[in-house]
Amino acid sequence: MAKDQKKQPRPKAETPKGFRDTFGADVTERKAMLDRIAGVYHSHGFDPLETSAVETVEALGKFLPDVDRPNAGVFAWQEEAVPGISGGGGGGSGDWLALRYDLTAPLARVAAQYRNDLPSPYRRFAMGPVWRNEKPGPGRFRQFYQCDADTVGSASVAADAEICAMLAEALEAVGIARGDYLVRINNRKVLNGVLEAADVSADQAEDVLRTIDKFDKVGRDGVLALLTTGRRDDSGAQIDGVGLSPDQAAPVLAFLTSKGADNAATLANLRAAVGGSDMGAEGVDELAQMAAMLAAMGVAEDRAVIDPSVVRGLGYYTGPVFEAELTFEILDDKGRKRQFGSVAGGGRYDGLVERFTGQKVPATGVSIGVDRLLAALRAKGLGGDAATGPVVVTVMDRDRMADYQAMAAELRAAGIRAEVYLGNPKNFGNQLKYADKRGAPVAIIQGADEAARGVVLLKNLPKGAMLAKNMSHDEWAQQPAQIEVAQERLAEMTQAMIRQISLSNSYIAKED
Amino acid sequence: MAKDQKKQPRPKAETPKGFRDTFGADVTERKAMLDRIAGVYHSHGFDPLETSAVETVEALGKFLPDVDRPNAGVFAWQEEAVPGISGGGGGGSGDWLALRYDLTAPLARVAAQYRNDLPSPYRRFAMGPVWRNEKPGPGRFRQFYQCDADTVGSASVAADAEICAMLAEALEAVGIARGDYLVRINNRKVLNGVLEAADVSADQAEDVLRTIDKFDKVGRDGVLALLTTGRRDDSGAQIDGVGLSPDQAAPVLAFLTSKGADNAATLANLRAAVGGSDMGAEGVDELAQMAAMLAAMGVAEDRAVIDPSVVRGLGYYTGPVFEAELTFEILDDKGRKRQFGSVAGGGRYDGLVERFTGQKVPATGVSIGVDRLLAALRAKGLGGDAATGPVVVTVMDRDRMADYQAMAAELRAAGIRAEVYLGNPKNFGNQLKYADKRGAPVAIIQGADEAARGVVLLKNLPKGAMLAKNMSHDEWAQQPAQIEVAQERLAEMTQAMIRQISLSNSYIAKED
Repeated sequence: MAKDQKKQPRPKAETPKGFRDTFGADVTERKAMLDRIAGVYHSHGFDPLETSAVETVEALGKFLPDVDRPNAGVFAWQEEAVPGISGGGGGGSGDWLALRYDLTAPLARVAAQYRNDLPSPYRRFAMGPVWRNEKPGPGRFRQFYQCDADTVGSASVAADAEICAMLAEALEAVGIARGDYLVRINNRKVLNGVLEAADVSADQAEDVLRTIDKFDKVGRDGVLALLTTGRRDDSGAQIDGVGLSPDQAAPVLAFLTSKGADNAATLANLRAAVGGSDMGAEGVDELAQMAAMLAAMGVAEDRAVIDPSVVRGLGYYTGPVFEAELTFEILDDKGRKRQFGSVAGGGRYDGLVERFTGQKVPATGVSIGVDRLLAALRAKGLGGDAATGPVVVTVMDRDRMADYQAMAAELRAAGIRAEVYLGNPKNFGNQLKYADKRGAPVAIIQGADEAARGVVLLKNLPKGAMLAKNMSHDEWAQQPAQIEVAQERLAEMTQAMIRQISLSNSYIAKED
Repeated sequence: MAKDQKKQPRPKAETPKGFRDTFGADVTERKAMLDRIAGVYHSHGFDPLETSAVETVEALGKFLPDVDRPNAGVFAWQEEAVPGISGGGGGGSGDWLALRYDLTAPLARVAAQYRNDLPSPYRRFAMGPVWRNEKPGPGRFRQFYQCDADTVGSASVAADAEICAMLAEALEAVGIARGDYLVRINNRKVLNGVLEAADVSADQAEDVLRTIDKFDKVGRDGVLALLTTGRRDDSGAQIDGVGLSPDQAAPVLAFLTSKGADNAATLANLRAAVGGSDMGAEGVDELAQMAAMLAAMGVAEDRAVIDPSVVRGLGYYTGPVFEAELTFEILDDKGRKRQFGSVAGGGRYDGLVERFTGQKVPATGVSIGVDRLLAALRAKGLGGDAATGPVVVTVMDRDRMADYQAMAAELRAAGIRAEVYLGNPKNFGNQLKYADKRGAPVAIIQGADEAARGVVLLKNLPKGAMLAKNMSHDEWAQQPAQIEVAQERLAEMTQAMIRQISLSNSYIAKED
């Protein structure tokens, strides 16, 4: 071929745009968090489900209407008609396949595909990556983790209450203290009842939903103006109103601001707001039932509470909606204090498997924002063990590699994470630099002289680093940076040094 | 549009061909196995790495030579030139992206991309799904787990010895008993030395490699024939030989059959087989060093041993190669006894990051076959806890849902997995059928009468099932299928019943 001589340029060693790698402690930290959440879900009878990353575009429901191409938001490709025969991916004439963009669409497919085999109701949790073919940006990635729990096939609000209780428990299980979070609960039926009572037309209902979604941003007066005649925004532009009369807008506002001192007061306010609407009464009853069930499960109002100002998701869900907020303050990018905000949300929805089977199946579920919750844990200093680096056994004499490996094995047998330096041992300084990079607490050193005398040197690396920086600290000064111990006490004394370092660290942390 | 009226047919609720879902205990089981392996890797100083599922085809090195289309074996698609602007995935004009087909190619990319930041040597482990665009078949899936550990940047055979020791430990950590596995070690340089000593030309070397790969299948005499003049196979067809003289073939056969009673004997045989070849002597020295290091780490020859009959991978790797075999017997599909066989393999390779940087970086690593090892654990009855179903609190009175949820919460607080039945409670038989499907050990029952008397009924579900099948068993017969207990002893007595069931189960298992 003519191209035979073409020299291949070196490939770029880069992740595709919008993708990232996760290293070491970050992997461990996320895994520990998800494991704790999984433990809570499992204890509530939820079973893990791991679907394949790849689905047919048909099952995902992601074909663009009336065309045979998938939605641009998913990563999709077309199979070869006969896979594995002709060359070249991505240009076949068979089925369109795509990476899942959330964990709910695969659940819908599974609930339909295995509907005769799964227990009903089916409680499942799922944790794993999803993919979005979107423009990446700061903090916006095209692959990220989701963590969902759903109950499929139960129409009872007991299922919703259970999920709210479980969400509170999951947050505590990962380390968020009681008082630092709140699960807030609302109900779409109450809003529907309010709209019915206020005689709002079906056409206007959509606009009302869009408007109350701005409650957090524009406040009570802003929403009142937008529901009625409109308002001028900060730039001076006129925003059209929905056109409700003041009498119609009043119950909507009463609904949004009906949060009382406790659930009982809130429920009384809501009963007033829904007037004579049956739908509204049903919604308030559901909230009352959920409140009673949460109390029975030992979840007090300081952990999960009825709050009609939760409007996010009201347009999507059909019954109860809920949101978990972290209530402690952090500093934002500009150094201003603000509440951390929402880390999870969910609610009741009905259309889950209808696309596949034609049958409406009631379902309710919650999704935890994995990256946001991890960020919250880090902001609270709950990111996990700082000193996870291994003890590094250095190599003074390359012919005695087996001895060094025996030492590392001895340390591991005592439960200490340990490794032998495996690079070129010629430059000892490089070995210590390596140990620092690994976050090693202790380096083990044994040259020919020490070996002959049956001793090893234990070097306290954080202390060494402090001394190198000419820092002085009472706590540090009391321990020498390097001690000599009898070889038979290697594991015991290394353990003691690690314990001392970890105590010093927490002492310093407290002083800061 | 003209197509507006077209009725969308219902989508098929199916995984794409070659993909599968993993449910409940199967997810838990695999996770428990991988967690134990990760624990061993971590204790040896290996850090977790989780790369993105998506890579550029360029970084994967999967463009077909001299064409601009990716290899058919990967799932690939072309990005929009400006992602997220125009509609339709999979037909763009930007970069080609693909799903990773193993965990080594992403490691190569990472080792090159972060070469200035990563510690060197860099020990990492990775566990996760990979994707192959291949024709699916029985037991052949297009998405499956891999579990790799590699050390990048160390030329020392200490790194190879460490990985062999770690592999033995990992197998024991997941439950494979000492004596039920063996890590077998060989070295490519020894073979190269043998070929040098036998004066085999570079052209013939490839053919020799292909031939000795058949050693397991055709045996000593078959290989001898194939190395020299050829042989007739079972169908009577003539297979050409490589054309070595008997004198040339002899050392190759000596190499393949040089396994002695212990490492010392094997090493002596190998020294004879490599004759005066420097390369061969180097290989034998490396094996001798590895043997010494393994012994120093407490890994005896019944766990990891030098075995020159390991030929799998000799063609690919550049130094030590190793393979972990399970040595216990299982029954195959046809009911015949056979050894379980290989569950992991690895070795030393050099070209890892060279494609990206032009520099050769030495590396060594191992990959555990996740599905095969899981199958082995199941074959050994080590698949994990059988009784993982939750206690099911049944609903006799739908108005008392909060009470039932309080009971479930009480059980969970005592460490018992528990849930309330959330389906339609009208038909009590359905509730018990549901509990059976969930694998529940115990059902909790409290009607109005029991509530008034302050008691609950605990139903032993496995026992109920035995009685229903008219089976009798001393152990079972001693316990009634249903007992009444005071409500304040709910958690305590449920715990006791679960313990009794688990004891009965292991009693029955022993009798089988």
